[in-house]
Amino acid sequence: MEKKIITISREFGSGGRTIGHQVAEALGIPFYDKELVEQVALESGFAPKFVEEHGEHSPGKSIFSYAFASHGTPGVMDGLSTADFLWNIQCGVILQLAEKGPCVIVGRNADYILKDRPDVLHAFIYADKEFRADRIVRLYGESEKSPQTRLNEKDKRRKANYQHYTGRVWGEARNYDISLSTSVLGIEKCTEILVDLMRGK
Amino acid sequence: MEKKIITISREFGSGGRTIGHQVAEALGIPFYDKELVEQVALESGFAPKFVEEHGEHSPGKSIFSYAFASHGTPGVMDGLSTADFLWNIQCGVILQLAEKGPCVIVGRNADYILKDRPDVLHAFIYADKEFRADRIVRLYGESEKSPQTRLNEKDKRRKANYQHYTGRVWGEARNYDISLSTSVLGIEKCTEILVDLMRGK
Repeated sequence: MEKKIITISREFGSGGRTIGHQVAEALGIPFYDKELVEQVALESGFAPKFVEEHGEHSPGKSIFSYAFASHGTPGVMDGLSTADFLWNIQCGVILQLAEKGPCVIVGRNADYILKDRPDVLHAFIYADKEFRADRIVRLYGESEKSPQTRLNEKDKRRKANYQHYTGRVWGEARNYDISLSTSVLGIEKCTEILVDLMRGK
Repeated sequence: MEKKIITISREFGSGGRTIGHQVAEALGIPFYDKELVEQVALESGFAPKFVEEHGEHSPGKSIFSYAFASHGTPGVMDGLSTADFLWNIQCGVILQLAEKGPCVIVGRNADYILKDRPDVLHAFIYADKEFRADRIVRLYGESEKSPQTRLNEKDKRRKANYQHYTGRVWGEARNYDISLSTSVLGIEKCTEILVDLMRGK
């Protein structure tokens, strides 16, 4: 069926976010990345009603146990429970954004959150480590850590986060409708393929 | 760089073989599938020199131990050692076919065997089980086993074979340059995407 929304999951440094931007621009539809979704979630102010309405979308434990735990012991808010709490809000935000109409959503495990919508195309963007290492240094600059270390840490976190919230294995082709290597195909070509698919070409 | 050869790894019933055929026809280049590669391997007659020359391409144990074992106890030839023996021959055959020039190779873990050639595009074709179950019944007819059982058995064997000979995890996007779901994108569209990529469009 016709796809109206596209989720882009990506490896750190692969260019997935850039591709998401380009696809959204080409199609003239809103672009939501991780930061924007988090902002929207925070702006929702954790309204109890909102949480109550969308808590059931959580793939993790009940939102209420975390809310309770966090109020009981503030320290817990700095740990996993905060992440889970925000995750619940974000699931609701992403489901609502999808309801609004066509858009591009990058990150936030949106592929899993929107897996039951037949009008969503799920793409995975990845690249070899040399390509990504070179890119993150050019885009985000040097740091005390080597690019390889930064990639390994980010990959490890992203993989664990995905596994934790979705129960799926990060990087498995079957989690997506299409997977593209930017280090082999190039960022422009990947954008072109996705735009054509969204246009039903 | 420009791609001259394309390997197509596929899930049973996904339409990967059909796509390989269509891509080869569109590009006017030879098409080699599992059966053809096996035939070429057998026609090579297991010439000792050929085996000696290509044995080192085996990702498994040394070809010679198996050859020896098989001569010592013919029964062993029916088991893993025969598979490994043929695998060694086939690695050599696939490497030779690639040397000949542009072609499409389906199956036989060619993605791994040709991983060091920069002029090869590696594609993975998959689909959801309903799509594949419907397709194998239409293409190969009914059998005493349910389509689901046939798919599960074949998937399990293919996964184990891939893991055994390549040390990689079957279905991981990073093993390929592009992965496409035929149940979502359709066989014709997947063929079109691959043909365009091979043409450098």
